[in-house]
Amino acid sequence: MNFVSDNAAGVAPEIMDAIAAANGGTAPSYGRDDRTEGAHCRLAEVFEHEVAAALVTTGSAANGLALAMLAPPYGAVLAQEAAHVQMDECGAPEFFTGGAKLVPLATDGGKVTEAALRRALANYPSDAPETVHRVRPSCLSLSQPTEYGAVYSLAELESLCGLAHEAGLSVHLDGARFANALVTLGCSPAEASWNLGVDALSLGLTKNGCMAAEAVVLFDARRTRELAWRVKRAGQLLSKGRFLGAQVEAALQDGLWLSLASRANASAVRLATGLADVPGVEIVAPVESNAVFAVFPERIERRLREAGVGFLSWKYPGDRWDGRLRRLMTSFRTREEDIERLLALAGGAATTNRVVQG
Amino acid sequence: MNFVSDNAAGVAPEIMDAIAAANGGTAPSYGRDDRTEGAHCRLAEVFEHEVAAALVTTGSAANGLALAMLAPPYGAVLAQEAAHVQMDECGAPEFFTGGAKLVPLATDGGKVTEAALRRALANYPSDAPETVHRVRPSCLSLSQPTEYGAVYSLAELESLCGLAHEAGLSVHLDGARFANALVTLGCSPAEASWNLGVDALSLGLTKNGCMAAEAVVLFDARRTRELAWRVKRAGQLLSKGRFLGAQVEAALQDGLWLSLASRANASAVRLATGLADVPGVEIVAPVESNAVFAVFPERIERRLREAGVGFLSWKYPGDRWDGRLRRLMTSFRTREEDIERLLALAGGAATTNRVVQG
Amino acid sequence: MNFVSDNAAGVAPEIMDAIAAANGGTAPSYGRDDRTEGAHCRLAEVFEHEVAAALVTTGSAANGLALAMLAPPYGAVLAQEAAHVQMDECGAPEFFTGGAKLVPLATDGGKVTEAALRRALANYPSDAPETVHRVRPSCLSLSQPTEYGAVYSLAELESLCGLAHEAGLSVHLDGARFANALVTLGCSPAEASWNLGVDALSLGLTKNGCMAAEAVVLFDARRTRELAWRVKRAGQLLSKGRFLGAQVEAALQDGLWLSLASRANASAVRLATGLADVPGVEIVAPVESNAVFAVFPERIERRLREAGVGFLSWKYPGDRWDGRLRRLMTSFRTREEDIERLLALAGGAATTNRVVQG
Amino acid sequence: MNFVSDNAAGVAPEIMDAIAAANGGTAPSYGRDDRTEGAHCRLAEVFEHEVAAALVTTGSAANGLALAMLAPPYGAVLAQEAAHVQMDECGAPEFFTGGAKLVPLATDGGKVTEAALRRALANYPSDAPETVHRVRPSCLSLSQPTEYGAVYSLAELESLCGLAHEAGLSVHLDGARFANALVTLGCSPAEASWNLGVDALSLGLTKNGCMAAEAVVLFDARRTRELAWRVKRAGQLLSKGRFLGAQVEAALQDGLWLSLASRANASAVRLATGLADVPGVEIVAPVESNAVFAVFPERIERRLREAGVGFLSWKYPGDRWDGRLRRLMTSFRTREEDIERLLALAGGAATTNRVVQG
Repeated sequence: MNFVSDNAAGVAPEIMDAIAAANGGTAPSYGRDDRTEGAHCRLAEVFEHEVAAALVTTGSAANGLALAMLAPPYGAVLAQEAAHVQMDECGAPEFFTGGAKLVPLATDGGKVTEAALRRALANYPSDAPETVHRVRPSCLSLSQPTEYGAVYSLAELESLCGLAHEAGLSVHLDGARFANALVTLGCSPAEASWNLGVDALSLGLTKNGCMAAEAVVLFDARRTRELAWRVKRAGQLLSKGRFLGAQVEAALQDGLWLSLASRANASAVRLATGLADVPGVEIVAPVESNAVFAVFPERIERRLREAGVGFLSWKYPGDRWDGRLRRLMTSFRTREEDIERLLALAGGAATTNRVVQG
Repeated sequence: MNFVSDNAAGVAPEIMDAIAAANGGTAPSYGRDDRTEGAHCRLAEVFEHEVAAALVTTGSAANGLALAMLAPPYGAVLAQEAAHVQMDECGAPEFFTGGAKLVPLATDGGKVTEAALRRALANYPSDAPETVHRVRPSCLSLSQPTEYGAVYSLAELESLCGLAHEAGLSVHLDGARFANALVTLGCSPAEASWNLGVDALSLGLTKNGCMAAEAVVLFDARRTRELAWRVKRAGQLLSKGRFLGAQVEAALQDGLWLSLASRANASAVRLATGLADVPGVEIVAPVESNAVFAVFPERIERRLREAGVGFLSWKYPGDRWDGRLRRLMTSFRTREEDIERLLALAGGAATTNRVVQG
Repeated sequence: MNFVSDNAAGVAPEIMDAIAAANGGTAPSYGRDDRTEGAHCRLAEVFEHEVAAALVTTGSAANGLALAMLAPPYGAVLAQEAAHVQMDECGAPEFFTGGAKLVPLATDGGKVTEAALRRALANYPSDAPETVHRVRPSCLSLSQPTEYGAVYSLAELESLCGLAHEAGLSVHLDGARFANALVTLGCSPAEASWNLGVDALSLGLTKNGCMAAEAVVLFDARRTRELAWRVKRAGQLLSKGRFLGAQVEAALQDGLWLSLASRANASAVRLATGLADVPGVEIVAPVESNAVFAVFPERIERRLREAGVGFLSWKYPGDRWDGRLRRLMTSFRTREEDIERLLALAGGAATTNRVVQG
Repeated sequence: MNFVSDNAAGVAPEIMDAIAAANGGTAPSYGRDDRTEGAHCRLAEVFEHEVAAALVTTGSAANGLALAMLAPPYGAVLAQEAAHVQMDECGAPEFFTGGAKLVPLATDGGKVTEAALRRALANYPSDAPETVHRVRPSCLSLSQPTEYGAVYSLAELESLCGLAHEAGLSVHLDGARFANALVTLGCSPAEASWNLGVDALSLGLTKNGCMAAEAVVLFDARRTRELAWRVKRAGQLLSKGRFLGAQVEAALQDGLWLSLASRANASAVRLATGLADVPGVEIVAPVESNAVFAVFPERIERRLREAGVGFLSWKYPGDRWDGRLRRLMTSFRTREEDIERLLALAGGAATTNRVVQG
């Protein structure tokens, strides 16, 4: 039973079929094939907007490329202090941007607040003598959903985008699990992105059933050529691009990405609801995507570990759980019987615990 | 009939099977899975050497990472003037190394000669006042086979490696089609690499039947951690790494990579031999891998194009063919009937030609 | 009356004389002249240690080069959140290092504490699966004195160096005002640097009476050549190097740098002592170098401003003065009569104030 | 007798006076002082154009910054193969641009020809599938005068600028000795720069009598802020900027820079004329600035060396002198008696030579 990561789940059968189907005959290389073209068409359709887009193989590359399009080397990317781009990409944003500064925003439950953004911007005045001494705030990067699984409301996003634009910053969305957020929000991709003022999106599809497929999506189509150069230069232009195009095309076809994400989200809700009923287990955040953050009594954790249930210890700068926070991820592939078995194990350990204590 | 590139050929069935087989159940992400481990074991076995290796998705990334391991930002990478790292990676070597200088070596038929290397090194004396004004030659990068399809003999390589090491340079091999060279040389991977003094190899498997799989191989295993950091930072660490590991593992298992390359090489020989018999066609270089470089009379070229035969116009800085050079690539998947058909078309056009002229 | 910055003070006469004296006849260029050699000798003498050193023209260049010698691009530089390298160099550390991550350490009065360092290091475990996802902590950068004018005791520094080394980090000292700290500590340069475990020092001389002269000092002499390449590449190797060498040589000759710093420190003490006697003025930090941090009643500040006294509004992330903190810098050139006049103005405004209130 | 470099000549008295005069009282730091403002005014006046300018301390920094303003990281800078930016700045252009590719242009006597530029551009087609695989030619960098001391005519420059612009490239002039070229051309700075289509100029003043002063001059004033950020980030913003401003202001005041350059040029002409009369000495290029390139019979060279005359062995990729080329530089400070003495030595050795041979 693996609740470690949605990355552990492998490839959805529909995606695997599309990959296999792409293997017939020869095809032009380096993204000039029909599948890649199809994927680009799907992106424009799904977002109801012309886009400058690129298909890449990792989220770190997607984020790095998006940020490089939005921040000059002498610029700053503002992102919450525990964001993936801050902590989990080994400096990829610094690498791709040519050394832009990553400025950490204090966080409240993983979301960037207006107040935190204002405080940070105040350190970088645009009209003072010190302006030239400080990097130029260029881009606000938000994770949707956040690394805590929370989903910004459209109103929250719109207000952050407004504040950022007013201060001259572009807005980037790290959408490694964007589909999971969409399902929760119940709105269209357009409503959840450019319509709010989002300038660029890292659209993650790997965690959502693809093999290795992410899209950099800029809502300014004039930047297509610059993006293409940066992609090639970063070693992200696949020679047999059709197999990447096929994944993206299939995922976006007929809402597959949304139905896969729905499944994952529903599993997370089921898991959290069940765990909340187990005495002693604390669910520390509302479940808004496919992550459950919980604190377990020691005995329950031991029982789960012994039974081979996999999940991660989680930690945020300054969190209050003192190393006891755990993250359980669900995916499109999470089986109901595994959830039930986990709940039974936890419930059993809880009961035993009370009996013993009694 | 596609002779444009071996990248046009899709995925070998054995590789596709391995990918599909890797999809069962859950697996640890980010390269901590069994398939990736298997691939690393295969690499050590095949090269008969401990290695620091990384699996990545493109040749540009493999080259960039290898060069970044061998050249500091204030260093120079010496490579022939038309090498892939010079001309066809949109500055990826500069990007990955943090701005090392790419110094072009004049070329003779695509191979770096000792004389050319000595001339270049003479511009970068190590003991003169100007030393600090010039970048430090750090790495010699050779393509094996070359971009002209030629294969360096072991003696040639050994001598270039010796000269490089003597001058304090490491040696990198861009082995985008390394298997094709091995087949021609008839020697072991070890004999064709570290045994000659090669420090790092970009081992290409994509052109040879994989979907998107290249390996950076350093023959100094102590550098494993540095390489891993660089890979992650470059956005090249796949989350679902098992599908990359499976490709490499399968390719290196039971000599599959060599038999696929043998097929491609044999097709190239058949194609070149046939074309050489067509009056007016000039084969401009010996066929030592899976590339055929030819100059066609205009009438023959027109006939081939009209019949939908795909191949590339080729050009090297300073070549003598004035835009008339053509490259035809074969692959593991090239069909004998396509070669025969191409030869028939060419032969027919040649005959017509003479009759008309007569 | 300018208390804005010690940079406002111009050049000490002894330094100006040395510059003029260096102008006789011809001299080898690019640092191969006698004055530069003399400066290097003085550095080794003064620090009682072989060094790899470079003379440069700005503190940002000195810091950037020092950090580039200590942190790889995939590394992290840990420094307190309001340090010069974090906030006031427009991303120079990111530029010079090729994109290393700057990790902010929470600060207590401008000093990095052991606890803050431990907390930060805990986010970058060296033995966990996430290691490769996070940049590698490579260097602890401390400002001595701090941006608040505080001076680390030798014991504090030794303990921070020990903790850093234990975790595999090098230690860099941003010594833009190192001489001012030395004077306060009353110890030798050696005792305040390598003897404690400091690996590299940015030795600032510009603020202390030079025209534009800083030294990068590494206590590992084997790195001389790498440093030289990086300096040239950064456009910091002066062609007429003798004028830079002459400044450093003269400053370090016969303790000039220390006597200039003593003067500046003494002026700061006099200024702070006097201000502390003015009712309503709060001196918010002990004066340990040549900076006075004060909070003024509004009426006093107005009077000072009206009289043309220059000083800066100061702000640190999260400080508690709500924009009312002011910094007054003294220098080797601060005149006693200016201090007395400032105190008289402040005292007068304070008295008036009370009378009016009364 | 030092003919090694114009960098060996120290500082002109007028400049030294201006530096000393700038030392009175306090002044705002970081370029907000009157001298820096004065220098910027002089630049606009002298060039009869609004400019975005920055004062820096080295030619490598000026070139690097100018190129970073004109070429993106995925771009290419085209410059002749032996240009300073190619060979003598330890990769500073790659560093400042974030890894743009430096493409060498074959040279004819040090000048870039239209034919060479066209050939290079042909390798980077803008409309072909390979476009994305190759860096984007972004900037043509020309040295005026060239590293061989030759001066492009206005017509030559205009035609190269036109060709560059047509292909979408900006034009940068490395004017390390721009004043020497102006004197030869007998035209105004405007006529020799933006009027021809030059977009950015590295205006060298150090070799021409300053201590350490170069200006980056862009003829698009809207780019002032971006340039300022890049300058600070590169560690090139001097804290005591008035001493840099004073040099530039004084040099540009009342044509001082032109009269200093005239003196240097006249000395070179005298030297070359005299040497041409010495039997066996070959002057290998017309003297158009302050450099004399000569080939000496061995006996004459020995005599000069023995007498302590300093000059450089010179070498260009592919030159025909087989290591026997020598460069003699004059400066504003070259004394007539030194020239006469050198000529006497050479003449004497030549005579002796013939007698012995006879």
